[in-house]
Amino acid sequence: MTKREADADTVSKTIDLLSGQGLKARTVQWNDRILVVTGKNPSRDILDQLQKSAITDRLVISHESAQLASKEFQNDGSIIRVGRDEIGATKIVTIAGPCSVESSEQVMETARAIKKAGASILRGGVFKPRTSPYDFQGIGETGLQILAKARAETGLPVVTEVLEPSKVELAAKYADMLQIGARNVQNFSLLRAVGKSGKPVLLKRGMMTTIDEWLQAAEYMLLEGNRNVVLCERGIRTFEKATRNTLDLSAVPVLKNRTHLPVIVDPSHATGRTDLIAPMARAAIAAGADGLMIEVHPNPEKALSDSSQQLKPQEFAKLMEELEPVARSVGRSMC
Amino acid sequence: MTKREADADTVSKTIDLLSGQGLKARTVQWNDRILVVTGKNPSRDILDQLQKSAITDRLVISHESAQLASKEFQNDGSIIRVGRDEIGATKIVTIAGPCSVESSEQVMETARAIKKAGASILRGGVFKPRTSPYDFQGIGETGLQILAKARAETGLPVVTEVLEPSKVELAAKYADMLQIGARNVQNFSLLRAVGKSGKPVLLKRGMMTTIDEWLQAAEYMLLEGNRNVVLCERGIRTFEKATRNTLDLSAVPVLKNRTHLPVIVDPSHATGRTDLIAPMARAAIAAGADGLMIEVHPNPEKALSDSSQQLKPQEFAKLMEELEPVARSVGRSMC
Amino acid sequence: MTKREADADTVSKTIDLLSGQGLKARTVQWNDRILVVTGKNPSRDILDQLQKSAITDRLVISHESAQLASKEFQNDGSIIRVGRDEIGATKIVTIAGPCSVESSEQVMETARAIKKAGASILRGGVFKPRTSPYDFQGIGETGLQILAKARAETGLPVVTEVLEPSKVELAAKYADMLQIGARNVQNFSLLRAVGKSGKPVLLKRGMMTTIDEWLQAAEYMLLEGNRNVVLCERGIRTFEKATRNTLDLSAVPVLKNRTHLPVIVDPSHATGRTDLIAPMARAAIAAGADGLMIEVHPNPEKALSDSSQQLKPQEFAKLMEELEPVARSVGRSMC
Amino acid sequence: MTKREADADTVSKTIDLLSGQGLKARTVQWNDRILVVTGKNPSRDILDQLQKSAITDRLVISHESAQLASKEFQNDGSIIRVGRDEIGATKIVTIAGPCSVESSEQVMETARAIKKAGASILRGGVFKPRTSPYDFQGIGETGLQILAKARAETGLPVVTEVLEPSKVELAAKYADMLQIGARNVQNFSLLRAVGKSGKPVLLKRGMMTTIDEWLQAAEYMLLEGNRNVVLCERGIRTFEKATRNTLDLSAVPVLKNRTHLPVIVDPSHATGRTDLIAPMARAAIAAGADGLMIEVHPNPEKALSDSSQQLKPQEFAKLMEELEPVARSVGRSMC
Repeated sequence: MTKREADADTVSKTIDLLSGQGLKARTVQWNDRILVVTGKNPSRDILDQLQKSAITDRLVISHESAQLASKEFQNDGSIIRVGRDEIGATKIVTIAGPCSVESSEQVMETARAIKKAGASILRGGVFKPRTSPYDFQGIGETGLQILAKARAETGLPVVTEVLEPSKVELAAKYADMLQIGARNVQNFSLLRAVGKSGKPVLLKRGMMTTIDEWLQAAEYMLLEGNRNVVLCERGIRTFEKATRNTLDLSAVPVLKNRTHLPVIVDPSHATGRTDLIAPMARAAIAAGADGLMIEVHPNPEKALSDSSQQLKPQEFAKLMEELEPVARSVGRSMC
Repeated sequence: MTKREADADTVSKTIDLLSGQGLKARTVQWNDRILVVTGKNPSRDILDQLQKSAITDRLVISHESAQLASKEFQNDGSIIRVGRDEIGATKIVTIAGPCSVESSEQVMETARAIKKAGASILRGGVFKPRTSPYDFQGIGETGLQILAKARAETGLPVVTEVLEPSKVELAAKYADMLQIGARNVQNFSLLRAVGKSGKPVLLKRGMMTTIDEWLQAAEYMLLEGNRNVVLCERGIRTFEKATRNTLDLSAVPVLKNRTHLPVIVDPSHATGRTDLIAPMARAAIAAGADGLMIEVHPNPEKALSDSSQQLKPQEFAKLMEELEPVARSVGRSMC
Repeated sequence: MTKREADADTVSKTIDLLSGQGLKARTVQWNDRILVVTGKNPSRDILDQLQKSAITDRLVISHESAQLASKEFQNDGSIIRVGRDEIGATKIVTIAGPCSVESSEQVMETARAIKKAGASILRGGVFKPRTSPYDFQGIGETGLQILAKARAETGLPVVTEVLEPSKVELAAKYADMLQIGARNVQNFSLLRAVGKSGKPVLLKRGMMTTIDEWLQAAEYMLLEGNRNVVLCERGIRTFEKATRNTLDLSAVPVLKNRTHLPVIVDPSHATGRTDLIAPMARAAIAAGADGLMIEVHPNPEKALSDSSQQLKPQEFAKLMEELEPVARSVGRSMC
Repeated sequence: MTKREADADTVSKTIDLLSGQGLKARTVQWNDRILVVTGKNPSRDILDQLQKSAITDRLVISHESAQLASKEFQNDGSIIRVGRDEIGATKIVTIAGPCSVESSEQVMETARAIKKAGASILRGGVFKPRTSPYDFQGIGETGLQILAKARAETGLPVVTEVLEPSKVELAAKYADMLQIGARNVQNFSLLRAVGKSGKPVLLKRGMMTTIDEWLQAAEYMLLEGNRNVVLCERGIRTFEKATRNTLDLSAVPVLKNRTHLPVIVDPSHATGRTDLIAPMARAAIAAGADGLMIEVHPNPEKALSDSSQQLKPQEFAKLMEELEPVARSVGRSMC
């Protein structure tokens, strides 16, 4: 339920009214309004009272468990601004860059190349979630400084992954957008911390996360008043091993029917194979995705992580050209 | 290994040579040639002998377990002729029609509508594989006669599913293409019988079939000398239940890298939801599919099977129009 | 719904009554009774009429889609007689033998050994469903004769897999029990043919089959009047690749709550590893299984199929001894 | 590789030697020794040098990616002491208690009942990872105080889940063992923090975690010098929906072959159904599990979480009695 600007006193009376009915209500600051949100829908009776109440601006009954993420709460697609670009608008937003930040040279070379090819946002991991404790774990704050430098030179905003609540503030100081990776989609304290940061968030789907669970993970951040959540499909775990994961492209139109949040697709992690990035990027756009996340590295075979799935800068540039007609065919554009 | 036209005697000598090495060899009639095929590759020594042999035209070493289906055996994509259309050529071939043949009126109305909208092949099930023995099992031969009548009027070739070897001859009498459904992808006696029929085959992927297993299922038919095999991705079974199955679109470029057989996509069965057919059809074309299979019924809510996933004729016509620019964006066309 | 011995005329009147309500009814011969079975439950009104009818013995309302398989239809567990043994009684019935019948010596040696170790039924495949057309496909009728010979000498009844309806009669001539393999659990024409044969059936779960679908597959055979269906859990396909399949032992108590049909477990196919057979056989008994199916081969490393999952005769004998105390701990016995 | 008590200087020389070969080495305090651990195995040459080195006590070449967890590193099963009990010894250790700590009365009543029934450890969640932000999230530190009080009265040690690094210290102050839940099995900062705490850890398998990945998650904690890691199988996510998850009991013997860490099984979360807890608990013991984790609540239908899977105290007591003969049948005991 949404409420018009109302003084703290009337809002608190509404909350009392709801708790009288056994409904735990909480308030969320939403632009210039305060939302009073309950997990379950109130009875007909209470709804009538609220409807008539002087402080009620709009009453929303949502049938989704993720209420603030639902189309019932907001029918128009959200447009999330990152730097000068908008995710969820006509332009297909492309996020590109290396899996891991390794050195200043590597990042600068990549940033210049992807900028020239038409990418909107630079990605690069500095805290790496690795299955094995013996694998490269990222270079940390040094990497954030390198990303910031690349932004200063190219003007590209940067997105980077955070792994734990205690590093959110640090990452937010440098990055324009924070990424929550597949393994952390149900790391609820991290979701809350990133929600509180107010920064645009890229929330990746987990390998075994249903669409329902994913939307509820987004809801954790929306409930902190952070409206800037972008969902990123990156493949689910199935029995098929020809690809690293199974890219669930149907999730794109399923989400478009259920949520106002933008949806982008990461064909690099989904397939784990450079030869599949182009066809799956085309398919993602055709399915209705608002953007792409693609790994690009100046020298993939020497990369410290994910060497088999990163494109070379020239391959990325060629891909961007190829994608343009597909984007146009569905009424969108690449740049 | 491939052999040029050679008399039975020299071929049989070659087979003796191979069995001397413990390799079970078999012959396959392949256009105007006879292939001598072994499951495993012979030793260097034997290969040299074969290379020099007067009857050897071409020697193929394949690293795929499905040798005849592999790109190593035939690098150019196969083009399968069904009626006047060709699957695997520039044009995206669309197979459309009802899940089940129910009546002459239903089929005729559908056939006229899909023909007008630009479909190439009419589908309709007369033998229905149903999970429950209490569900509608199809109308059998009467249905085949209805399909034949629709072809006579519209000129559309027809494809229909066969469930058991003993019905292959009957179905082949009426249909232009035989379909092997998801549940029968490893029904090996059926694969052999359909292979022997020589008819073009639409081989659907099973719900739990890996791409490897699927290609080996196709190999069963190729080994009967039937080159006209078309693969149809229709979704795999995963934990995600928002869609009936999970459409594995990555399978399209994976297959394109491994086999010369054409690949089409069935978004109706994959998603089980009419609202997802259009975006997933667009995505399939963008991913490189050679065709689509789409369920169309004049009155979906009264359909005897799969009522939630069949388009109405006018919805199908609209879809075909929408797909044209996507097809063009990847250098293909819808009609 | 069940009916007492009633003449054809009154049964046919009942069917008319039901079809008046749009319910397709069919009759099934069930011991000395005739069942009139409808897929859906009739209205209250019709039920009342049937209740009062002279020919009604018992009226069953089942909430399962597999009605005849349900506990509502028959609460007591079915006991299926194969040879002198009973599956579903106190004794844990063990089916053992090679994956494939290869030679008379191999089968005779195995049969003698498993008999001595306490097994109840001899297994051996003569028609082999193989993923690759290049792999060993079984020795056919010769193999059936070998199995019959082993039975003649040892007294062990034999079970063998059938792959297609046209071979059911042949297999039924030699075997005491017919097996439907994992790949054919939804080969409905095969289910019907084996149902009609009247022979005890071992119905394996498919790699992708839900418990619901599996019970409905069994229902296909029960509806042919064949009450002798035994279910065999053999692992499902999941993302975990440490084992060949994932043995779903929870299926045992789930089935015990829903069906009167006996349930056995095949740890050989489920795990694909001889070192896991003993612990999973113990676990299966503890979970409530009525029997085990275990692959035994005199010389596993030379086996023509499944060499990594077959026990040697002495390993099998040792296993049977180890299982005895586990069987006793749950009120059962191994022999 | 293991090293005998050696001064810092010689250890650091070894590390230099290894880094000369491009091997990143780290030290781990392991009882009274210092381990020098590399992710990859050194060359033959370096191994020879190390072998001869005065500080080398034992050289371990492990083929597992989780080296310290491997049987190659330690062949004897680890025995983890929690309170007065030992996990990994002959006795099957039972952890029981409510899903969530709700009140002092609830916990005290449960604690007394499970103690009487023979349980070894009390469980109770105070920080709850919930899919929906609207669901009950646990009562936090108050709950820890309740658990501590229950321990004071009954003598039962307590285990509780931690969700984020910043709460590890707090939880460790009250609890005897820390649990890492399924959703956090790859929350690497949490793994490190719990590793550093030195407390015994119960590491649950994730819904999507392979056995390989799970062992590597354990390795994160072993590398912090925390040897007290217990693995808990609790079901994986598959297509089958008759149970909440699919209990992968084969994981128990697979792990027993690969790691020295104890393995317990949680049939409550795996099945989500109280009627399946007893058969799957029996099966777990028969498969070789070292313990069980079972949810017990004095009033399950009023529970604030997981109401369908918690046993009543009297049901739990009955279960413990039933398990005794199964435990004995495999050479173990329940108390």
